[in-house]
Amino acid sequence: MVEGNSLRVLAVGAHPDDVELGCGATLALFKRRGHEVYLLVLTKGEASGDPAVREKECKQSADCIGSDKLFFGNLKDTKITDGVETVMEIERFVDRLKPDIIFGHSFKDGHQDHRNAGMATLSAARNSKKVLLYESPAALREFCPQLFVDVTSTFDVKLKALEAFGSQATKVYFKGSDSHNEGRKFPYVSNAAEGLARFRGFQAGAELAEAFEVGKFLLEIEDRSER
Amino acid sequence: MVEGNSLRVLAVGAHPDDVELGCGATLALFKRRGHEVYLLVLTKGEASGDPAVREKECKQSADCIGSDKLFFGNLKDTKITDGVETVMEIERFVDRLKPDIIFGHSFKDGHQDHRNAGMATLSAARNSKKVLLYESPAALREFCPQLFVDVTSTFDVKLKALEAFGSQATKVYFKGSDSHNEGRKFPYVSNAAEGLARFRGFQAGAELAEAFEVGKFLLEIEDRSER
Amino acid sequence: MVEGNSLRVLAVGAHPDDVELGCGATLALFKRRGHEVYLLVLTKGEASGDPAVREKECKQSADCIGSDKLFFGNLKDTKITDGVETVMEIERFVDRLKPDIIFGHSFKDGHQDHRNAGMATLSAARNSKKVLLYESPAALREFCPQLFVDVTSTFDVKLKALEAFGSQATKVYFKGSDSHNEGRKFPYVSNAAEGLARFRGFQAGAELAEAFEVGKFLLEIEDRSER
Amino acid sequence: MVEGNSLRVLAVGAHPDDVELGCGATLALFKRRGHEVYLLVLTKGEASGDPAVREKECKQSADCIGSDKLFFGNLKDTKITDGVETVMEIERFVDRLKPDIIFGHSFKDGHQDHRNAGMATLSAARNSKKVLLYESPAALREFCPQLFVDVTSTFDVKLKALEAFGSQATKVYFKGSDSHNEGRKFPYVSNAAEGLARFRGFQAGAELAEAFEVGKFLLEIEDRSER
Amino acid sequence: MVEGNSLRVLAVGAHPDDVELGCGATLALFKRRGHEVYLLVLTKGEASGDPAVREKECKQSADCIGSDKLFFGNLKDTKITDGVETVMEIERFVDRLKPDIIFGHSFKDGHQDHRNAGMATLSAARNSKKVLLYESPAALREFCPQLFVDVTSTFDVKLKALEAFGSQATKVYFKGSDSHNEGRKFPYVSNAAEGLARFRGFQAGAELAEAFEVGKFLLEIEDRSER
Amino acid sequence: MVEGNSLRVLAVGAHPDDVELGCGATLALFKRRGHEVYLLVLTKGEASGDPAVREKECKQSADCIGSDKLFFGNLKDTKITDGVETVMEIERFVDRLKPDIIFGHSFKDGHQDHRNAGMATLSAARNSKKVLLYESPAALREFCPQLFVDVTSTFDVKLKALEAFGSQATKVYFKGSDSHNEGRKFPYVSNAAEGLARFRGFQAGAELAEAFEVGKFLLEIEDRSER
Repeated sequence: MVEGNSLRVLAVGAHPDDVELGCGATLALFKRRGHEVYLLVLTKGEASGDPAVREKECKQSADCIGSDKLFFGNLKDTKITDGVETVMEIERFVDRLKPDIIFGHSFKDGHQDHRNAGMATLSAARNSKKVLLYESPAALREFCPQLFVDVTSTFDVKLKALEAFGSQATKVYFKGSDSHNEGRKFPYVSNAAEGLARFRGFQAGAELAEAFEVGKFLLEIEDRSER
Repeated sequence: MVEGNSLRVLAVGAHPDDVELGCGATLALFKRRGHEVYLLVLTKGEASGDPAVREKECKQSADCIGSDKLFFGNLKDTKITDGVETVMEIERFVDRLKPDIIFGHSFKDGHQDHRNAGMATLSAARNSKKVLLYESPAALREFCPQLFVDVTSTFDVKLKALEAFGSQATKVYFKGSDSHNEGRKFPYVSNAAEGLARFRGFQAGAELAEAFEVGKFLLEIEDRSER
Repeated sequence: MVEGNSLRVLAVGAHPDDVELGCGATLALFKRRGHEVYLLVLTKGEASGDPAVREKECKQSADCIGSDKLFFGNLKDTKITDGVETVMEIERFVDRLKPDIIFGHSFKDGHQDHRNAGMATLSAARNSKKVLLYESPAALREFCPQLFVDVTSTFDVKLKALEAFGSQATKVYFKGSDSHNEGRKFPYVSNAAEGLARFRGFQAGAELAEAFEVGKFLLEIEDRSER
Repeated sequence: MVEGNSLRVLAVGAHPDDVELGCGATLALFKRRGHEVYLLVLTKGEASGDPAVREKECKQSADCIGSDKLFFGNLKDTKITDGVETVMEIERFVDRLKPDIIFGHSFKDGHQDHRNAGMATLSAARNSKKVLLYESPAALREFCPQLFVDVTSTFDVKLKALEAFGSQATKVYFKGSDSHNEGRKFPYVSNAAEGLARFRGFQAGAELAEAFEVGKFLLEIEDRSER
Repeated sequence: MVEGNSLRVLAVGAHPDDVELGCGATLALFKRRGHEVYLLVLTKGEASGDPAVREKECKQSADCIGSDKLFFGNLKDTKITDGVETVMEIERFVDRLKPDIIFGHSFKDGHQDHRNAGMATLSAARNSKKVLLYESPAALREFCPQLFVDVTSTFDVKLKALEAFGSQATKVYFKGSDSHNEGRKFPYVSNAAEGLARFRGFQAGAELAEAFEVGKFLLEIEDRSER
Repeated sequence: MVEGNSLRVLAVGAHPDDVELGCGATLALFKRRGHEVYLLVLTKGEASGDPAVREKECKQSADCIGSDKLFFGNLKDTKITDGVETVMEIERFVDRLKPDIIFGHSFKDGHQDHRNAGMATLSAARNSKKVLLYESPAALREFCPQLFVDVTSTFDVKLKALEAFGSQATKVYFKGSDSHNEGRKFPYVSNAAEGLARFRGFQAGAELAEAFEVGKFLLEIEDRSER
C-alpha cells in the first residue's frame, strides 16, 4: 500500500513510447519501490500510425511499467510548440498532481516536438522542486548525462514495455535497416537502449543505468538528528 | 545521536575559508540534521598569511559549522596541480571515510588552485556516488547552478563561520575597496555571499540557497513498498 | 539639458516589468547622467492581469526611471515568436530612434516570450553598434555575466520602479510563498534582485551591479590626441 | 599488399589499453582494409602494474589489431603534462611517419593524463590534415560524438585486444564491483565498450560504431571527372 | 562523364544566395571533380525582392557553379519554421535524390529562417550518412569550424556566382555602408567571404577554405587490401 | 600631448609577435587617438630563434605601433604555466601601471603557453575594470568574438609591425607551405590576419576589425547632464 511519504512522479512525453525509451526503467523502479507514477503523453502519435492503435499500445505499455494513471494531452503530433498552449497543457497536470519529481524531454534532441515539449515542461514545472530531463535515442550529441539511476533490477520491464509498441515495429527507427537486424531478439531501438544503459551503467558504477540532465534539483536533507 | 543511516559528507577545499564560502550553510544543515561532516583543506593558505594563524582560524570556523573533524592536506598554497599528487592526497581521505557525498570546487573558477583542486576531487571521487561542485565568489561566469540546497535555517552559521577568518579581514577580497564598505556590518565577501544566497534562493523557490554544479549524482530511490 | 553627444538608449522587454527587472538601475543611471532612455514593451502583459492596469503601472514605472518615452508594441502576451512579425515590430523603433545602445532579453531564459523577444531584438538590431542582453529573474542557469554596470547610486530607483507593479504583488513570482516573506519590506522578487545586484557587484568590484551578456559591442575609442 | 594510396594512421594513447578502448575497432578496420596502422603509447603504465608486463600485454594487443608497429614514448605514468615535453615526444613520430590521420584522446576526460595527452596531440598535429579524438570510458559527460565509424565487422577484434590486458583484470575499472559481474563472459569494461558501441551504432545507423570528436578534418574530394 | 562511384551532393538553403555564400566554392569543387550537385532553395526570397527576378538570378548562379539541377521549395520567406512542414519539404528531395552528402545551414545563425532551415535539414537527413552545416555571413559568434574544404582552385567561381545576385547589390548587407566601399571591385559581402576564406584557409593549412560544422559524419574507409 | 583623461592600455603576450597578431591594430589605434600603450611580452621566444634577435625585432615592432614602453617578463618560452609564478609576473606590471584596459590571450588557443598566459592575465587583472582577450591565428575553433574594434584606419600599421619579425619569416607558421605562397606580397600569417580582419569587419559593420572575447567589462557611463 502506498503511504504518506511515498513520492509522486510525473513523466511527460511528446508521443507514445517517448517516456518508455527515456526513463521507462526508472519509472518501473519508482513503482516497485512503492511510489506513485503518472504518465502524460502530449499527443497520440497520429503522424506515425492509427491513433486508436497507438493509444492502446501506450496503455498496455503503461500497465507494464505499473503506472498509476496514463493521461493524454490534446496536442497535435509533429505540431508541438514551446509556447503557452503546451505549457498550459502540462500545467493542468502539474497543478492537479503536485508531483515531487517531473521527468521531461531533454532539449538536446533532434526532434522538434521533443525539444519543445522539454522546454514547455521546464516552464510548467517552474515551481516544482525536481525536474530531470531524459535521454532519447534521438538525443543530439550535446546531451550531457549528469544524474544516473541504477536500473539493473527493472531494465527487463523497460524492454517489455517497449515491445508493446508493435505498430512501430516496421519503422526504420525501431527495427533499423535490414542489414543489421538479422537474428536479433529485440528490435533495433531496444538493442540500442540496452547498449546505452550498459554504458551509462559503467559511468555510474552500476550494471545498467538511465541518465538524465538536471533541469532543477532542490536537494532535501533528511533529518536523522532525533532518531 | 548519529545513527546508522545518517550520511557521511566530505567537503574538500584548496585553502582555509573556501569550503565555508562555497557550502558552509549546506554543511551546517547536514550537521544540524544529524549527519557526519568532514572537512579536508588541502593547504594552510600560507601564501596569504601566517599558516599557524590560518590553521587556528580554520579550526574555529569548522567548530562553528559543527564539523566532526577537520583535516589538512600537505599541499602548497598557490601550487596545487590537477595531477596525481593532488588526486592521491584526496583519495587517502575518500578511501578512509567512504563519504556518501563529496563537495569540491567547481572547475569554473578564476583561481588555478581552485580549478585544479576541483578536477582532482572529481578524479579522486571516481567511485563515489555523489559529487557536487560548489560556487566560490571567484567563480567564473560559466558556473552553472543545477542543484540547490535551501539554507534559510543555517545561513547565519555560515556568516558566523566566515567571521572566524579575521586575518583575511583587511584583504581587498574580503573587505572590498574603502568606498563601498562604510557602515556595513559584515565584510564585503559575506555581503556578497548573502546576496548570492538570496538570488539562488529565488531561483530555487526558497529564501536563501546555496547552488552547486553536479559532478556526478547517483539518485537512490527509497523503498516505500513494504510500509 | 541633453546635448549632442549624449547617448540614445532603447530597452526592449516582452512584458511590463521585464525591462525594470533586467536593467532598471542601469537605465536610471543613463538618465541621471544626461542620456536619452526609451522603453519598448512588446505586449501589455494581458495574460497576467487587466491590460489597462498593467499599462498604467508600466507608465508609472517608466516615469520613475525617468524614461523619455514609453512605447508599447502590438504583440500578444505569451504568443511572442522569434519570427518576422516580432523583428519588424522592433525594427520600427530601431529605425526611428537610431539608438546607440539597445538592451534586450537574454536568450538564456525560461520564458518563451523572453527568449523569442531577445532573439528578435538581436535580429532587429543587426546594424546597431551595441546590443546588451539583460538577466531576468527567470534566467536559465546558462546566463553568462560578461559586462557589468555599477548601479550603486541608482538601485533605489529600480526598487521604486518595481513597486509600481502593484497588480502583480500577489503573484507567487513577485511575493514568493508565504513561508519566506514575513516581515520583509519588499516583495520577494525585489529582494532577489537586490541579492543578485550585490553578488554581481562583488564580481564587478562594486557594491551593486547589473550584469549583461554581450550580444554585440563595437568598442569606440575616444580621441584624446588633440586636447 | 599495401599500395601507394593506402593511408597511414597513427593512434596516440597515454597508457597501454587507452588506444584499444578508444578506437581499437576502427584501427582494426583500417588494417583489414589495407592501410598502415601505428600505435604510440606515451607511458608504460607503470603506475598500475609492472611496466614489463604491461609492455608485453600491449604488444600482444597491438598484434591482435594487426598494427604495423607499436612505439612507446618516454613519459611518466600519471605525470603527463600538456606542455612542450609531451608535444615534442609526439612530434617526433608525426614528423617521421607523416600520418594521414591521427587519433588522440578527447580533452573531455576525467583523467589528467588523458586530457593532457589529447591537447599535446592536437598541438603536435597542427600541420596534419585529420585529427580525431576518441571516447574513453573515463570520458567526461561533455564528450560530443560527431564522427562515427561503423565497426560491426571488427568489434570482435577490439574485444580480443582488450583481453590481452590480463594484468588489469582485477582492477575495479576493468571488472566492476563484485555485485554486477557474475556470469558475464567479458570483464566490465568490455561490456561497457560493447554497450557504448551499440548505442553509437544506433546514432550512426549501424550495428556497432565508435564515435569521435573532430579535432580537425580537411575533407578531400576525390576526382571522378576523368574516369 | 559521371561514373557510378561519383558522389551525390545536396545543398539546402533558405533563400537564393544562401547556399552560394555558405558553400559555393565547395559545391563548385565537387562539380569540377566529377560529382553530382543539387541545390534546394526553400523559398524564392520574396521578402527581399521580386521573386521572379530572384529565381532567375538563382538559376544563373546555379549554372555558374555547374549544379545538375536547382529545386525550389514551397515555403514562405521569413516564415520558415523548424517544424514538420519544413522537414517534409526537405525529405521529399532527400528521399528522391538519396544524396551521399547534405549541406545545410548552421543553427548558429542570427536569421530565424536559417536556424530553422538548418534544424529541419538535420531532421530530414536523419538516415543520411553525412550532414555538414555551413557558415553564413550572418553566423552567430558560436559557429564552430570543424571540417574544412580547400577551395583555392574554385573560389573564383564562388565570387562569380555571387555576382549573379544583382538585385541584392544595393542592400546594406551586400554592399556595406557607403563609407567602406569606395573603389572596391566586389560588393561588401564578397569581400567578407574572401576574407573569411583566407582565414579558414590559414586554419586548415590551405590558401582559401570553406569551413563547416559537423552535423553527422559517418567516415567510410576505402578498401586497399586487394590491390 | 597625452592629457589626464587619456587611457592606459596594457597588452600581455606570451611571445614576441603574439600581441601584434592579436591586437596590433587596436593598440595602434589607441596610440593614434592619444592614449598610452604598454606591451608586456612574457618570454623572449627563445624556443623559436636567437632571443637577442627576437628581442630586437620585438622592439622594432613595438616602435612601429608607437608603444610607450615594451617590457619583457622573465618566463621561459614553451614553459609558461597558469600558476602563481606567471600571475605574479603579470601582477608586477598591473600594480605599477594601473591600466584601464588589459589585453590578454584568449584561453581558446591551441598553444599551451597562450592558454596559460591568458588565464594568468585574467587572474592578475582580477581587480581591473576591463580585460579583453584577443584572437590569435592559433585560436581554437571555440573562440567567440563578442567585442569588436574598427581598425580600418590602422590595419596597415599592424601589417608593418608584423614585418619586423623577419627571423620568423621562414617558419611554416609565418610563410605557409611553398605551394600556397607564390607571388604574394605578405607572408602567409599576415595574409590570414588581413582575411580575418575583413570578416570580423563584416560582422561588426566595418571594413576591417579585430575581435575580442570579453574577460570582464565594467561599462562606464559618461556624465552629460551638466554640459
